[in-house]
Amino acid sequence: MGSLSKCSRPMELFPSLRPTFPRHCSGLCSRQAQAGSEAGTGPRIKRQLKVLTQDRGFGCSNPIYGQTLNPLNLKKTPGGSSGGEGALLAEGGSILGMGTDTGGSIRIPASFCGVCGLRTTGSRLSSSGVTSAVKGKKSVTTAAGPMARDVESLALCLRALLSEDMHRLDPTVPPLPFREEVYSGKRPLRIGYYESDGFTQPSPSMARAVRLTSRLLQDAGHQVIPFSVPRVDYAFIHLFTGGLYADGGATLLEKLKWDIVDPSMKGLVSLLRLPDPLKCFWAWILKYIDPRTSQNLEEIRGVGTPKKLWEQHTAVEEYQQEFIAKWSSLDLDVLLVPALDPAFYIGYPALAASSFSYFSLFNVLNFSAGVVPVTTVTLEDEEELAFYRGYYGDNFQEAVRGSVGLPVGVQCVALPWEEELCLRLMKEVETLVKNQREPK
Amino acid sequence: MGSLSKCSRPMELFPSLRPTFPRHCSGLCSRQAQAGSEAGTGPRIKRQLKVLTQDRGFGCSNPIYGQTLNPLNLKKTPGGSSGGEGALLAEGGSILGMGTDTGGSIRIPASFCGVCGLRTTGSRLSSSGVTSAVKGKKSVTTAAGPMARDVESLALCLRALLSEDMHRLDPTVPPLPFREEVYSGKRPLRIGYYESDGFTQPSPSMARAVRLTSRLLQDAGHQVIPFSVPRVDYAFIHLFTGGLYADGGATLLEKLKWDIVDPSMKGLVSLLRLPDPLKCFWAWILKYIDPRTSQNLEEIRGVGTPKKLWEQHTAVEEYQQEFIAKWSSLDLDVLLVPALDPAFYIGYPALAASSFSYFSLFNVLNFSAGVVPVTTVTLEDEEELAFYRGYYGDNFQEAVRGSVGLPVGVQCVALPWEEELCLRLMKEVETLVKNQREPK
Repeated sequence: MGSLSKCSRPMELFPSLRPTFPRHCSGLCSRQAQAGSEAGTGPRIKRQLKVLTQDRGFGCSNPIYGQTLNPLNLKKTPGGSSGGEGALLAEGGSILGMGTDTGGSIRIPASFCGVCGLRTTGSRLSSSGVTSAVKGKKSVTTAAGPMARDVESLALCLRALLSEDMHRLDPTVPPLPFREEVYSGKRPLRIGYYESDGFTQPSPSMARAVRLTSRLLQDAGHQVIPFSVPRVDYAFIHLFTGGLYADGGATLLEKLKWDIVDPSMKGLVSLLRLPDPLKCFWAWILKYIDPRTSQNLEEIRGVGTPKKLWEQHTAVEEYQQEFIAKWSSLDLDVLLVPALDPAFYIGYPALAASSFSYFSLFNVLNFSAGVVPVTTVTLEDEEELAFYRGYYGDNFQEAVRGSVGLPVGVQCVALPWEEELCLRLMKEVETLVKNQREPK
Repeated sequence: MGSLSKCSRPMELFPSLRPTFPRHCSGLCSRQAQAGSEAGTGPRIKRQLKVLTQDRGFGCSNPIYGQTLNPLNLKKTPGGSSGGEGALLAEGGSILGMGTDTGGSIRIPASFCGVCGLRTTGSRLSSSGVTSAVKGKKSVTTAAGPMARDVESLALCLRALLSEDMHRLDPTVPPLPFREEVYSGKRPLRIGYYESDGFTQPSPSMARAVRLTSRLLQDAGHQVIPFSVPRVDYAFIHLFTGGLYADGGATLLEKLKWDIVDPSMKGLVSLLRLPDPLKCFWAWILKYIDPRTSQNLEEIRGVGTPKKLWEQHTAVEEYQQEFIAKWSSLDLDVLLVPALDPAFYIGYPALAASSFSYFSLFNVLNFSAGVVPVTTVTLEDEEELAFYRGYYGDNFQEAVRGSVGLPVGVQCVALPWEEELCLRLMKEVETLVKNQREPK
């Protein structure tokens, strides 16, 4: 637990930073834990929440408590922003935690720490009282969800929370109880899958985990159908990055004014602080050398006007409809896609940010998506990594090197409001993997 | 049906205007009618939708088909934007219609035409394919809903639409079926009520309708508790008007560029087209003479930046929580509040726009709210109107004069996702009124 030694102190030093960190805490306390408490799970949830307050971003570091380490390899990050909970769960120091997920903040630590995590559909769980440094975004959906060592614990948590109490305590949440019959359904599923999203080349272990899992699912009687993400560059760069920085980073910069900036954030903050003409000029210079960085730079300049932000909201809705239409045309029930594995070396999350395209797509789409560990990195994966080149500046080879034995997960995805079906697939994957002797 | 003679022609002349008008049509066709059709109500719904395509705004006029008249008094407007459907229903030319409601567009024509109309919670019904001149707004929720001559028809419609089919056809809609047990519940309710929202002085008939209904409900065994709207000026001017014009009207002006502007819209459009410094100067001049107009002018200047728009989204969520907290502290089930009655003379909706504070509050809150007729304007109401002065520039005395015999409704309001409870109250009000001999 050495890696977690700085996790337990209260968080009162920098008032301006506070809203950034404890966003997992207060809201989930106020309604989720109240609903949980009425169902008998409250105290457990409350206990974990305190530990979550130190996490931020894709990595897991802040200027007060410093860097959280991955207990499975102390040179690696547990991922973020809910990396404290991920690390605790990996070491058996917690049995259930809650996080929020705007671009993978539940699923990244679940992947890096080899535990399970579920991002629910926005508004399936209450977000009343959840604070955040950057509030009011509507292009990318932030949603809460549980993290645990196994799928059944996630289901247990949702079963307790998705009660009439939740709707009574926060009437903005629809009165949609946990649908037991969907979670324990037995009919064979039509499962779409992809090994690569076409934007970030998967690491050898990520691709192998999907191949392995889809084979197991097929052998168990399910139909497995190839799927490709429509307009993935547009979805990740224009809708996700553009949606996150629609204000040009103005809200975040305001929060950080006169305050300490964590080293992991310095690059981003310096970029956001550049005068707009300089960003524009730099984007133009990079257009032909590094088009993705150029496009990202264009996006973090912000949309400019409220009218353009309304257009972005509409573009997100249209993309969601386009994705659903493709999903429906294949008559899919669920999707099996890579998570992001293995854990990155500390300091690398900020350098390989495009790699979380595998997660953030489902925040744009507002689908339910969960991570379940299925294998560990093999020597063959490690050797194959030498040939990894990336598609277009998405090279995260350095970040994932030296990971033999570290956990590798897959992501199970279902349509909005279909958390029970998502959990059903996660449970089946978990069981099939357990019953299977993995190739050494 | 003379008043409706211009309603039935197709709508292909002005492509740039088209998205403004048929917003009721395509979306509700594509998913609602498909779900309805699978439940046997499709053809009826489709037939009405064609007629809705001529409506816009609070009135009911457009530059192609001209002015729709109220069949109960041809000098009056049927209200808008779904006034075509309201007029048709009032005359028995339709049994069920669908509309959308951003600030009262279902409830205003229901009030003015003496029929029933329900604005559902946003996302309770599908809005897939619904087009609008101004898309992407998130501060004020647009929601679909049915209109009919009685409450049972509204319930029948929702019963058919709120099926698994709706969720299957549009997975962004939660799989929340019609809760029969809530609609047909018998336990006594705790009903909050107000005669005035504190922003717009109600007409004598509006206040009398609420008094009459609350007395009937109390006699029937329900508890009736006074309620006051928190920060109503802030909610209506800052959140509703500010939310509707967060872009400074830029999107609407772009749609109307080089196009015919309906006379009912000319005032607004001219105002929006004023250069910002002039709006600012005018708002400053009016600050002490007509503070409400001054505040409205400030709001239609727009929020300015995407950062400010995010702050507005947050302000709306915080106001919603504040309102719900007040509701919960009184342990209310539902709310009984005035509708807006009687029907306005043609041309007046644009001059008395603040009077729809009674409706738009529930678009900011995203609550379910329905109108049910309870009485008609009496000679005493008309005489009392002579003493009407308005609170602060909310004088709509001229608009509602000469209305003896015209219908007057009340509004029944429930928390988000509680359409069944809202309908239950509407049904009880309808039944109690039917069983009661009204004072002549």
